[in-house]
Amino acid sequence: MAENEKKTERVANFSAGPAVLPEEVLLEAQKDLFSYKGKGLSVLEMSHRSKEFEQIWNDARADIIELLNKYQREKKITIDPKKYRKIPKNYKVLFLQGGGTLQFSAVPLNFNLANSNKPADYVVTGQWSKKACEEAKRFGNVNVVCNTTKTNPPCVNVPPLKEWKLSEDALYLHVCINETVHGVMMHEIPEVKCPIVADFSSCFMSEPIDVSNYCPRRILGKADPKCPIYCDWKTEATTDMYNTPPCFSAYIMGLVFKWLKNTIGGLEKMHELNLKKAKVVYDVVDEDDFYHAPVEKRNRSLMNIRFHLKGGEQMDALFVKEATALGLQNLKGYRDLGGIRVSTYNAQPYENCVKVAKFMRDFRKQHSK
Amino acid sequence: MAENEKKTERVANFSAGPAVLPEEVLLEAQKDLFSYKGKGLSVLEMSHRSKEFEQIWNDARADIIELLNKYQREKKITIDPKKYRKIPKNYKVLFLQGGGTLQFSAVPLNFNLANSNKPADYVVTGQWSKKACEEAKRFGNVNVVCNTTKTNPPCVNVPPLKEWKLSEDALYLHVCINETVHGVMMHEIPEVKCPIVADFSSCFMSEPIDVSNYCPRRILGKADPKCPIYCDWKTEATTDMYNTPPCFSAYIMGLVFKWLKNTIGGLEKMHELNLKKAKVVYDVVDEDDFYHAPVEKRNRSLMNIRFHLKGGEQMDALFVKEATALGLQNLKGYRDLGGIRVSTYNAQPYENCVKVAKFMRDFRKQHSK
Repeated sequence: MAENEKKTERVANFSAGPAVLPEEVLLEAQKDLFSYKGKGLSVLEMSHRSKEFEQIWNDARADIIELLNKYQREKKITIDPKKYRKIPKNYKVLFLQGGGTLQFSAVPLNFNLANSNKPADYVVTGQWSKKACEEAKRFGNVNVVCNTTKTNPPCVNVPPLKEWKLSEDALYLHVCINETVHGVMMHEIPEVKCPIVADFSSCFMSEPIDVSNYCPRRILGKADPKCPIYCDWKTEATTDMYNTPPCFSAYIMGLVFKWLKNTIGGLEKMHELNLKKAKVVYDVVDEDDFYHAPVEKRNRSLMNIRFHLKGGEQMDALFVKEATALGLQNLKGYRDLGGIRVSTYNAQPYENCVKVAKFMRDFRKQHSK
Repeated sequence: MAENEKKTERVANFSAGPAVLPEEVLLEAQKDLFSYKGKGLSVLEMSHRSKEFEQIWNDARADIIELLNKYQREKKITIDPKKYRKIPKNYKVLFLQGGGTLQFSAVPLNFNLANSNKPADYVVTGQWSKKACEEAKRFGNVNVVCNTTKTNPPCVNVPPLKEWKLSEDALYLHVCINETVHGVMMHEIPEVKCPIVADFSSCFMSEPIDVSNYCPRRILGKADPKCPIYCDWKTEATTDMYNTPPCFSAYIMGLVFKWLKNTIGGLEKMHELNLKKAKVVYDVVDEDDFYHAPVEKRNRSLMNIRFHLKGGEQMDALFVKEATALGLQNLKGYRDLGGIRVSTYNAQPYENCVKVAKFMRDFRKQHSK
């Protein structure tokens, strides 16, 4: 297949997850899928104890650290770059299965919330932090610092820090940085005495972050005695591949990290591009009231751009239908929420954002009364 | 790349896991990896709520049931085929992450062992059932029915059923059907009053099984109140894709199920082939005492053939070295155990077993004194 053919057959995929991957990552993975680097076996067939796989695993970890340690960014949004620190040496990168959902339980279990006399502080700003909070309540005492799921309209901002009702003596503070469903992003992190557990599931590596702000490794080894061995972070941190790890996921991640380093040029560049991509779409939304983005500007997500059409559900549906016909796929909002969601994760090409913006203008022109 | 070139570049991969996959599965996955069925996005990029992925997911589940329901086999080993029953309608197929290790905890948690006055019965016949048993002890009262890890030599059989010290009132009985590390396989399952939880991790679908012998769905909804939501089988059983599922794993499994149905012709045929493959290797072992298979014949694994060389560790190492040079890879036994392990899972081609058998004879000829 010629390079051109490969390129032209791609649709613009705005799915919120699983989501678009960099084209060069897919092409390399495709090459390795039958015979990894010509070694005569697929990356799917390799023992996790083989030296080839150990290299994949160790490279992925080393690259994550390298990317995060290049912390200075040119465009400063919220945090003073002088405050950025390198990842402390006692931190450890763990690749685990079960997704955010399993970690919703692993967090209170690792902090042994059930047997603590301290509460856990939870900031609830959308579906994911709500789920995390509800799960934590099953294990122990939870203090809801703020909760936007009950406001009208719900989940359109992160309340200002001064309104947060933090505990005096929290065991930890839990926040979800990007709420994929509601398109709400937290751009400010408070300074608190307790460890911060931050759920970066849907925006990790989309901009530089100061990892040392978050949950330190010294919490390892204090888990609830009834914590499943797989959920105890100490298990993987002290053994390294305690059980068969998510090999293919680590392999794909590793390719994405190399793309971030070599093609994009690091997290500052990635952030710049993400800002530019989101701006292209939000600019159309802000031009008049044909489109309405409910989230407060200061908490708009750079990953999941949520808006509704003035014309209501029928117009939303027509928008999705016409866009799909043009190869702009998966723009429908979350099932319970309706509206439109444009997901512009790291791997979403800028050109696709331009395409969707152009379509938005064309559609508005055609359907404005 | 021509078909021939693809075939010749494959090595014979005897890894115990991750392990060999059918060549046609890899070729199809490779095709779909850049653009799934020509739809312009990779199977890795598809929303799990898309109709394409729902089809993959539902097909994989339907095929698993279809394969298991074709239960009569021509060669009867241990269980009277008249006893085989179709999968009861109230059973549910769940695809979960975290591997056997997470299930080691999920089992006692779903049975709520911690809050039961009944013990859980564990049959310990190798590394995996030992790990499962140790994990269960953290949650509640465990009765070890038998334990071969302390015998000399350890883990070379499954004690006869009449020697099992079953509880009068067990909450459940846990068995590991195939011990990957020790090469011990359980070919007989006792009739007991309690539900049987069987760990088929490394031999599932390698022969027909009567699923109705095992843990029924009516146990759902009784989990430990402190069971992580992801570990509670009810979560996935009642919601279907509660959280983002292991999409790519389900996709690859689905391809393997189609291969089992269409290329192999079902589980009876698969079993015949597995018997034939294992026999080729065990026959060489049994010819004289140059090779020694420590596991009792009646419990020999059809998946992981374990043996040692009479010449000791140095000869084991030489065997592995010379085999590797000939493209027979990953024959080294488990790290703590040494010796040789030939893994002959479903996807291991018969030809590779013939190759290793030939190599074993050649090596013996060359190194016998």
